[in-house]
Amino acid sequence: MEISAQTKSSHPKVVIIGGGFGGLYAAMKLASQPVDVTLIDRTNYHLFQPLLYQVATAMLSPADIAQPIRAILREAKNIRVVMGRVESIDPEAKIVHTHALRYPYEYLILAAGARHSYFGNDQWEAFAPGLKNLSDALELRRRILNSFEIAETTEDPEIRHAAMTFVIIGAGPTGVEMAGSISELAKRTVVHDFRHIQTQRVRIVLLDAAPKVLPTFADSLCASALKQLKELGIEVKLGTKVVGVTPEGVQLEKEFIRARTVVWAAGNAASPLAKQLGEVDRQGRIIVSRDLSVPGHPEIFAIGDVANFPPQEGKPLPGVAPLAMQSGEHAAGNILAQVSGRQTKTFKYWDKGTMATIGRSKAIADLKIIKLSGFLAWLSWLFIHLLFIVELRNRILIFLQWAWSYTTYTSGARLTYPSFRPAVPPKEGMRASTDDII
Amino acid sequence: MEISAQTKSSHPKVVIIGGGFGGLYAAMKLASQPVDVTLIDRTNYHLFQPLLYQVATAMLSPADIAQPIRAILREAKNIRVVMGRVESIDPEAKIVHTHALRYPYEYLILAAGARHSYFGNDQWEAFAPGLKNLSDALELRRRILNSFEIAETTEDPEIRHAAMTFVIIGAGPTGVEMAGSISELAKRTVVHDFRHIQTQRVRIVLLDAAPKVLPTFADSLCASALKQLKELGIEVKLGTKVVGVTPEGVQLEKEFIRARTVVWAAGNAASPLAKQLGEVDRQGRIIVSRDLSVPGHPEIFAIGDVANFPPQEGKPLPGVAPLAMQSGEHAAGNILAQVSGRQTKTFKYWDKGTMATIGRSKAIADLKIIKLSGFLAWLSWLFIHLLFIVELRNRILIFLQWAWSYTTYTSGARLTYPSFRPAVPPKEGMRASTDDII
Repeated sequence: MEISAQTKSSHPKVVIIGGGFGGLYAAMKLASQPVDVTLIDRTNYHLFQPLLYQVATAMLSPADIAQPIRAILREAKNIRVVMGRVESIDPEAKIVHTHALRYPYEYLILAAGARHSYFGNDQWEAFAPGLKNLSDALELRRRILNSFEIAETTEDPEIRHAAMTFVIIGAGPTGVEMAGSISELAKRTVVHDFRHIQTQRVRIVLLDAAPKVLPTFADSLCASALKQLKELGIEVKLGTKVVGVTPEGVQLEKEFIRARTVVWAAGNAASPLAKQLGEVDRQGRIIVSRDLSVPGHPEIFAIGDVANFPPQEGKPLPGVAPLAMQSGEHAAGNILAQVSGRQTKTFKYWDKGTMATIGRSKAIADLKIIKLSGFLAWLSWLFIHLLFIVELRNRILIFLQWAWSYTTYTSGARLTYPSFRPAVPPKEGMRASTDDII
Repeated sequence: MEISAQTKSSHPKVVIIGGGFGGLYAAMKLASQPVDVTLIDRTNYHLFQPLLYQVATAMLSPADIAQPIRAILREAKNIRVVMGRVESIDPEAKIVHTHALRYPYEYLILAAGARHSYFGNDQWEAFAPGLKNLSDALELRRRILNSFEIAETTEDPEIRHAAMTFVIIGAGPTGVEMAGSISELAKRTVVHDFRHIQTQRVRIVLLDAAPKVLPTFADSLCASALKQLKELGIEVKLGTKVVGVTPEGVQLEKEFIRARTVVWAAGNAASPLAKQLGEVDRQGRIIVSRDLSVPGHPEIFAIGDVANFPPQEGKPLPGVAPLAMQSGEHAAGNILAQVSGRQTKTFKYWDKGTMATIGRSKAIADLKIIKLSGFLAWLSWLFIHLLFIVELRNRILIFLQWAWSYTTYTSGARLTYPSFRPAVPPKEGMRASTDDII
């Protein structure tokens, strides 16, 4: 039985799908406006995704980077938050269907984000999980921490070597951050915890088919990032194509790297909801109009990672959190314009600069007026990320944990949970005592 | 293939099974002594179990109450920590078998703790999970938070009523803490987050077959606890036997309570490893000798929840953390005595007092020299629990989160993870949109 969602007021109904940066900023812009907003997300929290890699590498706890969406929006009486999984959108009837309920709308904002793309090799996912949500992060944390446990207890040098090898596929921001923080975990945090292995001897390999790391940055910053990665002892293999991922490791064109932990940080695919609304590009994103509406549907807007934006100054826009926030606010503004009979406005992305962190005191930052690398870039990264954490309480907790880790070389969340994933077939010859315990 | 664990020194080998309070305190006592210690735990962390209910009610994060055992013991070079699941003990050959390895020993300390007992009704577990480890706590958190989501979205008053009803079976410390903190969560923390339900109208029922709450306390304190529970609006039903737990709720002798969330806080059963070593009591605990050794095996000691201790002053000893700690230290001391050819000593529990917390500013405490209830008891509870949290970093973080929650009436960890549990058959008529999403 399908039940129609309750509505009380006679204001136009706006449905927002997704509570990430895009959906949340759209909702905040619509707060206390003459619209009736329903925000649907499949979790009960907004995730501060830029720090997800710190959950994966046991630096922060899930709750440090996740706030209940209800709590963030509690003052906005015209917004209701619904936890539910959207199954389909009917743009003709103007109805969003979740698992059990249906939500009619006058205006729709699609902010459903992206998952990883394995470029048609979905069978690799089990052996090389990505990093998009908390469940991903806890799975990676589990694999990384368990690898050290297995290396410590095994008597077989081949198994030990594979357990001490970490391969990261994709040298964009996520790949670089993961490589840097696995290095820090191994070489600093757990270095005194084991008796039989020397964790500082880990092998960390960062692969990319492109010829540069962090290719969206200026050449001078790319070169600096590469140098900083090498200082951390990370093997960077550029121009290297992955031809296979197996339970035993990663097959390149000319070599096979035996590794127990493989991280996928290459390639995005927009939410499959996108293609229910119109034409999509190769990454599954909707090619939106200048005002962010979906062509042929002035009442539907697509924002963030689910949208392919018109280029600005001849360049495509980067898939970063500020773009999601700004496009969310802009789409909300255009809905309010339509509601009050005004014209919608063209979206203009204001690029305040980009930055990527590599490790302790290591980062690059392009702040438009100045390019930074090393310690200063890292300090700005810390500052800006703290500034954007939504809730004051989390800001304080994260600051304290960072300060503590920085001064004591420890990290706070070195525990693993039971796996959320369907059991992966045991890696042949790599099964050790702890492999299937936690 | 079984591999024997590596050993380097010629000191007697001590194996400790379990890294809870008992096992950890035994290990700390054996640090830097002339013994070769292996501590085996199935997780990589020591859990501060007395605060587990705060993880279940979204007040704290798992990492706040869990520290890596390796990190706690990193200075003790004669101790190795192994993550592994013990499958059997061979007391004649003196070998502990884990999933893949075998650990020979000269001395053994069994500190494997307890799980819940459903008194022969194991089929109740799926509908009424208990609270012993982090996975339990996160499962309960998921059920509690999802109940509000379901109540908010459903149109069916019966489903809403069942989702707003929480039954806790067992009025010992865990049951009382859970009842109190679910009440606080509903009536304070999330009260402004929902639009269609009034969370302060939850029904919380605390059941026990015994005629008193917290029956190990003095009568005056029991009466005070009962009064404090009623001030929180909790229905306390004493002398009430549970005859069934179903997907729809709890069957009592004379009534059926429809409830979506049921918590099991009644009854313990010691680790099944106990009965491999000798005679056990009805709760599966080993009846230990005065020096804590297992009768017939002077080289094996059982401590904490896995041991049935000789009564002191005619009274059985309480199953609390200080007893586990003291018995762990005592067993370790007796092993050191045997190693150096001295006599083992009789165990004497030093009862420093007991306390139970009920909610914000509500608690009872029997500190031997003085009995407290209400705000003062609650303050002493806070102080003593902070004092015992093993790591300084966690002490600061927990203190801050408590201080924040106390002053702002919010709580920090209101997110749910995917379920770790095998899927429970959907409750008939109680399935709503979010029931199987997260």
